[in-house]
Formats: sequence, structure tokens, C-alpha cells
Amino acid sequence: MSEVTELRDKLRTFSAERDWDQYHSPKNLASALVVEAAELLEPFQWLTEDQSRALPPGTAEAVRMEMADVLIYLIRLADKLDVDLMQAARDKIASNALRYPTEKAKGIARKYTEL
Amino acid sequence: MSEVTELRDKLRTFSAERDWDQYHSPKNLASALVVEAAELLEPFQWLTEDQSRALPPGTAEAVRMEMADVLIYLIRLADKLDVDLMQAARDKIASNALRYPTEKAKGIARKYTEL
Amino acid sequence: MSEVTELRDKLRTFSAERDWDQYHSPKNLASALVVEAAELLEPFQWLTEDQSRALPPGTAEAVRMEMADVLIYLIRLADKLDVDLMQAARDKIASNALRYPTEKAKGIARKYTEL
Amino acid sequence: MSEVTELRDKLRTFSAERDWDQYHSPKNLASALVVEAAELLEPFQWLTEDQSRALPPGTAEAVRMEMADVLIYLIRLADKLDVDLMQAARDKIASNALRYPTEKAKGIARKYTEL
Repeated sequence: MSEVTELRDKLRTFSAERDWDQYHSPKNLASALVVEAAELLEPFQWLTEDQSRALPPGTAEAVRMEMADVLIYLIRLADKLDVDLMQAARDKIASNALRYPTEKAKGIARKYTEL
Repeated sequence: MSEVTELRDKLRTFSAERDWDQYHSPKNLASALVVEAAELLEPFQWLTEDQSRALPPGTAEAVRMEMADVLIYLIRLADKLDVDLMQAARDKIASNALRYPTEKAKGIARKYTEL
Repeated sequence: MSEVTELRDKLRTFSAERDWDQYHSPKNLASALVVEAAELLEPFQWLTEDQSRALPPGTAEAVRMEMADVLIYLIRLADKLDVDLMQAARDKIASNALRYPTEKAKGIARKYTEL
Repeated sequence: MSEVTELRDKLRTFSAERDWDQYHSPKNLASALVVEAAELLEPFQWLTEDQSRALPPGTAEAVRMEMADVLIYLIRLADKLDVDLMQAARDKIASNALRYPTEKAKGIARKYTEL
């Protein structure tokens, strides 16, 4: 069993034991996920990019736990929507490879994401 | 090699080939992650919870691709911050188990997350 | 002087007195704004739509303060980017009126926002 | 009548004419607001702070329209929750003045917002 499947099963049990599935509609899980993603952004908001590469230990651990929360809600949402997360990521990378050919995209990430 | 490590390596190559590491500071990756999480929320925003459980195929596929984007930036950020994502999630679940004991948390998720 | 201009000036003074302008680049203010918007979403995430229409007093006050934070960062960002917020909103409403003609958009908001 | 009240009334009419109030629960409006805030962040995500201070005209106009969207949903939410937005901001600024006394907060914004 893969690590992701193992986490999915742990989270299923965790939620079932607490009768929390009633709250875990895809709509609500998508909301919870963006809330956690923003909590992950918060400690970075006033830092320079360089400072963000060298977090003090307390902040680093808090960021690690926020990353865990994002992954947890992402796995829960994937479970509810019957999505194979790892396959989805592989498909997206393949599609991005076509969208951003190396010669054209080289060093101009912004051009492709900017308005 | 685990699936996550495999994806991490693919993304490293993808970014290196395009000279994109210069943009991928933790601060910027955390911003990109919340942007993708919000794109994932967007198709749900006017739906009822019940509708969110039964997405039309086109929406379901778009949602699957947004989930992939969230995972991709999460793996990139974990790589830059030297975080073992799967271990972080296991640690967070263990900590949540102490924080929300089954008897107390049963069916009252809201009480524990509400202001 | 309009209420928004008055707030803008109060916030300018507040920031200047604390030497905070150095942190208030448009990029950072846009990050802070999404962080506050997510904090505003948090108390709603597990509620039903009906529950969200009848918040308990403590939650209602917390939500009011999060709305204030969103407005504060929006006004700061508008100040830094030289945007007239009220005019921008009037322009956007005029553009939405063309994009969503009443006969076509009636009762089908979702169709126009969904993927 | 203040500018905000005028916008609130315009938006009420806009929504009523399209039968959109059925979608505008506080929960849904809070979701829409964070989605728009993230769209506002998107053009900044790969920029340096300096670049964010000097946007090309096309990006600047797109950012202005995203700021309008944030304000529009904020005013709608305030209307639904019976919140006086301007008063809320004034109350929050007063409370922040107590929380961040000028002598202590001078030039160390981060200390007060960091984890």
C-alpha cells in the first residue's frame, strides 16, 4: 500500500471515529484547504524572499505543520471525489510539459503566469 | 523510491530545465499554493454541499487538475524547505488525535474549529 | 473628504508612525489581504449556508473584525497602487452589467462562474 | 448618502434583477471573497517586491479590477451580515493602536505577525 493510501485510510478512521464525515462535503473541504493554505502563507507575508529561505526553527516547525494540514485536507478531498492524487499530479506535469516547452519557457516563468 | 519522492524529482528536473528555480523561493511558492487552492475552491463557491458531491464530468476533471496544482506546489515547497511531507502529515494526525479525543469531539467538529 | 479617503489617511499615519511602509510592498499587501480573507472564511467553513445567516454574537463580532482587516489591507494596497477603489468598483459593476444581461443571467449565477 | 451605501444599493439591485440572492449566503460570499483575493495575488506571485511597485499598464488595470471584485463581495457580505464596514475598520484601527504601541512596534512589524 502506498504512503498516500495509508494516510487516506488513517484519515477515514479519524473522521469516522468523530462523526465528522457530515461536515466533510467537497465544498467544505475545499474551503478548509484554502484556509490552511493561507495559514501557511501567513508567516511568509512580511518576509523577503531571502528570509523565507532561512526560517528560524520555531517558524520552520509551524510551517511544517501547516503544510501537513494542507496535505491532510487535500487527501480527504481526493478521497471524497475519488481522485488518485499522484496520478493527477503526473497527468498535470505531462500537460505542463506541452504547455511550457523548455526552449520557450526558459527563465521567463513570469511571462506564462502573468496576466 | 516512494511516489512523492518520484514526483519531487520530476518537478526538480522540470524547474531546472526552465531556469525557474530563481522564482521558487518558499515565499513565492506559498503564494502560488494559496492561489491554486483558491482556484480549486472557485467551482464550488455557489454550489450547495449536495451539488458539490456530484460534480458534472467537466467540472470534476477541472477540479482534479486544480488538486494536482496544489500538490505540485506543496511538493516543491517541501523540497525547498527540506520537509518530509508524509512524515509531517503523520505527525499532525498524531497531534490532532490528542487535541480532539474521540469522546469529546464526536459530532461537534464545529465547536473545535469555530472562533 | 470621503470616508475611504479618511481611512486611507489614518492608515498612512498608522504605518508611518511604526516604520511599516518598508513591509508594505504591493506584493506583500496582496498576500496579507488573502490571508485575512481566509481568516474571514474560517468560521464559515463547517457551517451550513443557513447557519451562516445566523451567527452567534461572538462569531459575528469576530467576522466583523476580519472584514475590517480585509478592508484595511485593500485600502493600503489601493493607496500604494494609486487606485480609486470606489471608482474601480463602479467600473466593474458597469462591466458586469454588460457581461451578465438580466434576461440571460436570471437565476443561473452558477452557469456564469462555473468552470 | 455615503459612497459605500451607494455601492451597496447598486449591488442589491444588480443581484435582485438576476435572482442571485439565493446564492449569496454569507458562507458563499466569504468563499467568493477569498477566491477574488487570490486572483488579486496571482499577478504578484512571481514578481519581486520592487517589480510589484511598478506594474506594466495591462497588469495594473487587471489588478484594479480584481481589487474591485474584492470590494464588491466585501460590501455584499457586509450587507447580508448587517455590518457597517467603515465603522468596523475604524474600530479595528483603534484596537490595533492599543495592540501595537508605536514605541514597541517601530520597524519590527514581523515580530508581531510572525508565528
